[in-house]
Amino acid sequence: MTTPTTPPDAGRRELTVALLGGGTVGSQVARLLHESADDLAARAGAPLRLVGVGVRDTVRPREGIDQDLLTDDIEGLAASGADVVVEVLGGIEPARSLILAAMAAGSSIVTANKALLAEDGATLHAAAEKHGVDLYYEASVAGAIPLLRPLRDSLAGDKVRRVLGIVNGTTNFILSAMDENGADYADVLAEAQALGYAEADPTADVEGYDAAQKAAILAGLAFHTKIPLGSVYREGITGVTRAQVEAAIAAGYVIKLLAICERIERSSEGEAGVSVRVYPALVPARHPLAAVHGAYNAVFVEAAAAGDLMFYGAGAGGVETASAVLGDLVSVARRHVAGGPGLIESTHAALPVLPVGRAITRYQVTLEVIDRPGVLARVARVISRAGVSVEAMRQSASEARRPGGEEAGPATATLVIETHTAAESALASIVRALTGDEVVLSVTSVLRVEGS
Amino acid sequence: MTTPTTPPDAGRRELTVALLGGGTVGSQVARLLHESADDLAARAGAPLRLVGVGVRDTVRPREGIDQDLLTDDIEGLAASGADVVVEVLGGIEPARSLILAAMAAGSSIVTANKALLAEDGATLHAAAEKHGVDLYYEASVAGAIPLLRPLRDSLAGDKVRRVLGIVNGTTNFILSAMDENGADYADVLAEAQALGYAEADPTADVEGYDAAQKAAILAGLAFHTKIPLGSVYREGITGVTRAQVEAAIAAGYVIKLLAICERIERSSEGEAGVSVRVYPALVPARHPLAAVHGAYNAVFVEAAAAGDLMFYGAGAGGVETASAVLGDLVSVARRHVAGGPGLIESTHAALPVLPVGRAITRYQVTLEVIDRPGVLARVARVISRAGVSVEAMRQSASEARRPGGEEAGPATATLVIETHTAAESALASIVRALTGDEVVLSVTSVLRVEGS
Repeated sequence: MTTPTTPPDAGRRELTVALLGGGTVGSQVARLLHESADDLAARAGAPLRLVGVGVRDTVRPREGIDQDLLTDDIEGLAASGADVVVEVLGGIEPARSLILAAMAAGSSIVTANKALLAEDGATLHAAAEKHGVDLYYEASVAGAIPLLRPLRDSLAGDKVRRVLGIVNGTTNFILSAMDENGADYADVLAEAQALGYAEADPTADVEGYDAAQKAAILAGLAFHTKIPLGSVYREGITGVTRAQVEAAIAAGYVIKLLAICERIERSSEGEAGVSVRVYPALVPARHPLAAVHGAYNAVFVEAAAAGDLMFYGAGAGGVETASAVLGDLVSVARRHVAGGPGLIESTHAALPVLPVGRAITRYQVTLEVIDRPGVLARVARVISRAGVSVEAMRQSASEARRPGGEEAGPATATLVIETHTAAESALASIVRALTGDEVVLSVTSVLRVEGS
Repeated sequence: MTTPTTPPDAGRRELTVALLGGGTVGSQVARLLHESADDLAARAGAPLRLVGVGVRDTVRPREGIDQDLLTDDIEGLAASGADVVVEVLGGIEPARSLILAAMAAGSSIVTANKALLAEDGATLHAAAEKHGVDLYYEASVAGAIPLLRPLRDSLAGDKVRRVLGIVNGTTNFILSAMDENGADYADVLAEAQALGYAEADPTADVEGYDAAQKAAILAGLAFHTKIPLGSVYREGITGVTRAQVEAAIAAGYVIKLLAICERIERSSEGEAGVSVRVYPALVPARHPLAAVHGAYNAVFVEAAAAGDLMFYGAGAGGVETASAVLGDLVSVARRHVAGGPGLIESTHAALPVLPVGRAITRYQVTLEVIDRPGVLARVARVISRAGVSVEAMRQSASEARRPGGEEAGPATATLVIETHTAAESALASIVRALTGDEVVLSVTSVLRVEGS
């Protein structure tokens, strides 16, 4: 193992790489490092030599990894001073301690660890700056789709206004299937589990926790601001019904679980800041995000000068994630070959993250109401009293039948209301007022409209 | 003006920028440099100071540019040793000489000049390497869409198999309008000219010259190979008829002008290399590229590990191009602040560019034939004799009427043939054979099918 120098010398003969983790992603990284060695050396400016793979079990053979490289001394490998340490263990600990030890030993870091970056990216960035090493994490969001580098570098001279992302393949697979086959959530989830698109315990995906981590990372890059994970508002898709999906189609929308990162120049309370939120939303059928089907991911970016941009691709998977890791590895290697200290992440903007109540968007609210004259006007009055204007209202005789009985209750109607833009807090007060109103039997659906 | 050092010192107080050109793009670059000065300084790590704008006419006021910065000594400004020289003049000369003089004076270069890069990128890259300066040119292809950086950096550890690009906004606007409104090419071109989407002399766009330049740049990056512009095969859209567009829709396709960069592992003649070509092609309606409407651009990338990726956005325009220029400027500035020599473009692969005859794709050929028994079999025989297999054949009674007459000729039929993949050279021999055949009245359309 070569002894590292900081900053590294130009023109060095080879660069050493230590790989922490030998699972799905790690074994693909090892395979590609081996198979593409000549290409990588040419692109990086020096050969990349894998010096060790840290795993818990060194006895089990792993496809694509030379058995001699396996070691269970993961801590020793992390702190060995390799030029680059690649962390693909996942989770908060021991990944964080290992990365910090590696940085202290002068190693640059390439990681795919979205949980750690979302939870404690600030600590990692500070340590990278302190030790003058690189920290790259393209693989942490949307697999191989180049996102972090475009946001950090290509749009560095622009001002990002909004990022709308489909960043979780499992939920997009489920919502696409509900949209295309008119199926129920539970049935599609079971199918996704059978196909391996959803975990046995799907909570992290379907409740939006995974998307929230990615939203925090994306917002941090887009707005040059540290985004605490706890400040990300989150709703999952478990409450999305077939009726909502059908109503969306009829109204010219599709339902997508979106990670939304938005710069707010002036909130409902007059503050400037950013809003970061994850929820199922209505997206117009002609919007480019509406055409993102199955387990694919896409991120739509609205920038002041660049206009609308979209990045699309396979969201996850071992080999796709490994591609992103190798891209980072080559970038770090080139910088080591060229010399000079690592590039520092900028979080200079330090914008406040506003609570979701300050976010401003459009809403579609669906009500079951008693079907009698004056109901429409009454509902409209409740909405206007909250300072919100109605863009469209559609009433139709309700087809709902009471379970198990033919007995006729009062005649009911379904009322679909689309509002102009309003603050989340105004929406909440409207829903409260409607829920308690005597003509409203139930509020059956509240969805935001995004991307219009 | 500060005196530059090469490599530049770390921790410098400010970075100087010289701007060559004060037109549509240049004035937007100057405006954004001024308006976003604080943001840019924070992201770059040092303030960026515009030291001069080289223009031919210094008297005419230019919006967004301080009159005192204007100079008509463009050569002097280029060679003044600014940290970064931004070239937005366009064209081959004097842009090339100015860039080479700037590099010799130790300046890094940011340019939007696709013509120069496509025509003589090799000279620029060699000079950048010689002088240890940076050469960035994101703005040269697809406006603000981050493409070059993802291809060069994010996919550096991957293997790009194919790039399919809609890289010319004018032609996509025209083809989209023909597709959506069933209009004729000439009418839509006139409309595009009236709206400012097409030039008075539209040749560079509609004949595919602009797309061919971008294809050469994209292929160079994707395959780490120098691509001579003369090796790019090119057909424009002037021959695309309303009948072809309607037939495409009926068969589940749309017609797009594509820039195609393809790695060929084994051509029809057994060689390995790359194929770079521009022509109107049939794209399946469900392909993500089919949903790219109007003047938007998009580039679809197929990589071995990353899978399918797409980059989408506004293709051109002064402010979009300026956004890309500023992104490059910040990257270069960061590298100057960090110290170390410029990063070198890799052209290590040096793959041969194969002639278009070696490209392998699918075809749709439309014929007017005499409507009599045995014609289908006869045409099928001509095709199979060339070693090509037919995927589908559809025959329909022809609706064509002879101009000006009611006089009935022989009964005719329209025959649409879709082939399996075959070499371009085989297609050419089929078209020759069919054209001379006694049952074939005319070959009315030959289109490649891509993206399936």
